[in-house]
Amino acid sequence: MDMYRTHSCGQLRESDINEKVTLSGWVQKTRDKGFVIWIDLRDRYGITQLVLDEDRTASKLLKLARELGREFVVQVKGEVIERASKNPNIPTGNIEVLVEELVVLNPSKTPPFTIENETDGGEDLRMKYRYLDIRRNPVKNNLIFRSKVTMEVRKYLSDQGFIEVETPYLIKSTPEGARDFVVPSRMNEGQFYALPQSPQTFKQLLMVGGLDKYFQIVKCFRDEDLRADRQPEFTQIDCEMAFVEQEDILNAFEGLTKHLLKQINGVDISAFPRISYDDAMRIYGNDKPDIRFGMEFGELNPIAQHKNFTVFNSAELVVGIAVPGAGDYSRKEIDALVEWVKRPQIGAKGMVYVKYNKDGSFKSSVDKFYDQEDLAKWAAATEAQKGDLICVLSGDAHKTRTQLSALRMEMARRLQLRKPDEFAPLWVTDFPLLELDEETGHYHAMHHPFTSPKPGQLELLETNPGAVRANAYDLVLNGNEIGGGSIRIHDKEVQSTMLRHLGFTPEEAKAQFGFLMDAFQYGAPPHGGIAFGLDRLVAILGGQETIRDFIAFPKNNNGRDVMIDAPAPIDNAQLKELGLKLDV
Amino acid sequence: MDMYRTHSCGQLRESDINEKVTLSGWVQKTRDKGFVIWIDLRDRYGITQLVLDEDRTASKLLKLARELGREFVVQVKGEVIERASKNPNIPTGNIEVLVEELVVLNPSKTPPFTIENETDGGEDLRMKYRYLDIRRNPVKNNLIFRSKVTMEVRKYLSDQGFIEVETPYLIKSTPEGARDFVVPSRMNEGQFYALPQSPQTFKQLLMVGGLDKYFQIVKCFRDEDLRADRQPEFTQIDCEMAFVEQEDILNAFEGLTKHLLKQINGVDISAFPRISYDDAMRIYGNDKPDIRFGMEFGELNPIAQHKNFTVFNSAELVVGIAVPGAGDYSRKEIDALVEWVKRPQIGAKGMVYVKYNKDGSFKSSVDKFYDQEDLAKWAAATEAQKGDLICVLSGDAHKTRTQLSALRMEMARRLQLRKPDEFAPLWVTDFPLLELDEETGHYHAMHHPFTSPKPGQLELLETNPGAVRANAYDLVLNGNEIGGGSIRIHDKEVQSTMLRHLGFTPEEAKAQFGFLMDAFQYGAPPHGGIAFGLDRLVAILGGQETIRDFIAFPKNNNGRDVMIDAPAPIDNAQLKELGLKLDV
Repeated sequence: MDMYRTHSCGQLRESDINEKVTLSGWVQKTRDKGFVIWIDLRDRYGITQLVLDEDRTASKLLKLARELGREFVVQVKGEVIERASKNPNIPTGNIEVLVEELVVLNPSKTPPFTIENETDGGEDLRMKYRYLDIRRNPVKNNLIFRSKVTMEVRKYLSDQGFIEVETPYLIKSTPEGARDFVVPSRMNEGQFYALPQSPQTFKQLLMVGGLDKYFQIVKCFRDEDLRADRQPEFTQIDCEMAFVEQEDILNAFEGLTKHLLKQINGVDISAFPRISYDDAMRIYGNDKPDIRFGMEFGELNPIAQHKNFTVFNSAELVVGIAVPGAGDYSRKEIDALVEWVKRPQIGAKGMVYVKYNKDGSFKSSVDKFYDQEDLAKWAAATEAQKGDLICVLSGDAHKTRTQLSALRMEMARRLQLRKPDEFAPLWVTDFPLLELDEETGHYHAMHHPFTSPKPGQLELLETNPGAVRANAYDLVLNGNEIGGGSIRIHDKEVQSTMLRHLGFTPEEAKAQFGFLMDAFQYGAPPHGGIAFGLDRLVAILGGQETIRDFIAFPKNNNGRDVMIDAPAPIDNAQLKELGLKLDV
Repeated sequence: MDMYRTHSCGQLRESDINEKVTLSGWVQKTRDKGFVIWIDLRDRYGITQLVLDEDRTASKLLKLARELGREFVVQVKGEVIERASKNPNIPTGNIEVLVEELVVLNPSKTPPFTIENETDGGEDLRMKYRYLDIRRNPVKNNLIFRSKVTMEVRKYLSDQGFIEVETPYLIKSTPEGARDFVVPSRMNEGQFYALPQSPQTFKQLLMVGGLDKYFQIVKCFRDEDLRADRQPEFTQIDCEMAFVEQEDILNAFEGLTKHLLKQINGVDISAFPRISYDDAMRIYGNDKPDIRFGMEFGELNPIAQHKNFTVFNSAELVVGIAVPGAGDYSRKEIDALVEWVKRPQIGAKGMVYVKYNKDGSFKSSVDKFYDQEDLAKWAAATEAQKGDLICVLSGDAHKTRTQLSALRMEMARRLQLRKPDEFAPLWVTDFPLLELDEETGHYHAMHHPFTSPKPGQLELLETNPGAVRANAYDLVLNGNEIGGGSIRIHDKEVQSTMLRHLGFTPEEAKAQFGFLMDAFQYGAPPHGGIAFGLDRLVAILGGQETIRDFIAFPKNNNGRDVMIDAPAPIDNAQLKELGLKLDV
């Protein structure tokens, strides 16, 4: 036969009946009824049913068709005919192709797992044979979805005057948060490049360079110990603008996010709510709250303390949430919940509960200390409704909020309140500039060392570093931080002061960031930006939890690509050329 | 003032007269006439003239304006007024802004070179202060141009059903042509990732995975000794298609290239000419011929040999070109040309010339051996016209062709026949599969080890490897290879045979490419692809020779980024963590 195909396997319709066509694809399955054989032929675009039967097909062809196994690659020529029993579930379901020629382009061994929407393959096997996993609709469609999202991002930002600029991958190691991956240089023996954790300094230099509006969809690298859903290489939508204040940036990227929600998910969302970091922590115990459901924190100190319950009396914070409709939890279920909050990962000492009964009465674990009137105040503070379960934690303010946040999320999961097709974006603003590392007692930059303190707060760095707030903001979607950014420092002296407070000696500051501070002396404009985690964004827009199936070739939790078996040893000659020796 | 700007510096027109506006930008220059001061304010979008004068401006403002230096960043508020002496050369030339408020957002030291279209800065200084260089229109416009080209590529390929898929950057070292950059793994001590020289195997696996049409605009890395216009990291438009033959790919990417020439350069080009590798070498001595001008090779063996000129008689090849209009070269000019071809970089032993005089007579350096009738035949063979200069070289066929190709290009340059705004694309096809490494006596893959030999030529690998031709093709534009690709091997046995011929032991083949050959056993479709060098493509479409000014932050010839001073030493703790020691 000449060309491999005249049509795709998702293309033929009733209007093509009587056409002679050529198709190529994979054998999805074969049903052999003896006198008739049906074959589902699959490609990226769909499935077309092929038919061969004893009346109309040469016996040689029938024989060949019977030898086809799953995932064989074949080319067929035949006539489009009307299908006797139509399949309304697929677009090609009204026709089939009566096979006149059949060529096996490539046979296939039996695949190690089934190439179906629901596969029998475990995670490890699917990763090793990722190219087979990609044939499955869920993974294939995720990759197509990702391509569509990135194209929409690029179109929108280009239309808004942003220029996509590629920044270098072989840069310089900087002590910025996570560890760098380094790349030994052969031409400069004993020296190393680093792979960027983000193009942060380069995008700032592009603003100094007058490009005004920059974006890039770009790989970034962090050599961190990997948590379940992290990757050593990940993709950012990286953006920066000059002559802007925080308000300009929030507006610009609220626009992008709305555009994506509209174009990709068909969802219209008006102005995104905004909340300060302090309020987010106070109301949700979390700087990336999921606001698709309520369960806002009610602080109970004034109404729960100074009774005879010493646990509360000695606590810095007493705080509760009303879990909707959980008032009918059994004693056993509640005990299990208490055990859940006491798990080491959560770390609460215990939990007080109040059942707000349907009849308006209360039943609590602390009835000894609080009467119905007291508990009614608790219900008011947590905005509980009849039928709810009020869960109360107490202790150190920060820890207790974090624990209650974990409980809030757990209850939302159990009650299925985290609906994947509902989208609730939220700006969290006014982040602290610095964060205290409790181990070392040192402050480090919460966002990064280039984030600008709020106007007039520079002096606070000396007296009360933890109180300094930054023009830094996160975009939170459904309880996930999908983007974060800040207004940057554009003044050399401020940048020096900042680095000094972060523990850099003047020599270290100059060695690491001298080029940036030099740049600030030649007319740096005010600027700021944001970066979105593309992998996460795509997963959330796709209504899914894990990023891995939106990445074509992800690495496992040990940073290994099990398909190609990387990383791997290299030979001594190559090491020698790089001026290196193993020291393992 | 509140917001940094209401308009850009390229936006205001006569219709804005009487408007109150706020602008921000850089001071391009100041002209102080005493009673009036004009300031050119610049941003990415253009230049707007500001005016202050003694009649209308507060003296404090005049004083402040007099303190502004070049590249100061300022914000001004004022009224748009009609300009007395209009400047038709800029879009804002009919108006100016009468300044009412002026704020210095950031002062600037005197820049180390002038921020003008023609700068006084040398290459090194421009690279060290690249952020200032980017402010200059030529560099800024190149970056904007590049962004536009990549956006057009993405739009076109997406519209054609291609999916952009990100392949990993942390992969496995393979002995494919150039050296890999490697990345030591901390989590897998003593092991290394490699940065991809191209996503070759991954895009093939995506075809095995059924994605059908893939593309990616992606950084690639080669640790080669750098020639003048090469970069250790460069960008590829990487593409692959399944169920295709060479013809399908040439058509698809001829479409892309036409689209770019049309959208970017406004040039319509009909079907691209095609030439085989053998013909390209025979006619142009070059596998990437510039066909914007003639000077095709004329082989003179039958007509120039067997006279008494022993130099020619003993030569494998006698071959000439007719240089248009150079027939009036002086003796001195011709002598210089002879010296030019004898330079070690070219390596010719000498050059025979024939002047085709305006009167139809010939004057040559070999008049002793050839009469006018002989020389007329040479003129016919080289398609010389009256007034041309025929240049003839002789010797070993391959070397002589290469030398004459160099001379052809040199003459085209001298005669300014390589017009940057003229575009002559050309497909070169039927490349040899293998290339003999003259040093080692071994064959290596001319394209890469995954290129398919032409059907039926597999056996030739045993008997005459150099004669095997591949379904491999290059797209040449104006004498530059801008793209290259091939139909790939999709059969495990063929791939094994190929690797064996390239000198891999079965163990090495399995260790390096086992995952690919495994994949071929599970229903790999026929596939092929192409990759374009984006840096070069953009430079050519932009009518320029060097790629460096189309790269935001290029590296120098030692692979260094002189702005950030990378690569650089890393500290011992970091080395220790990676299980490495320096061995310099």
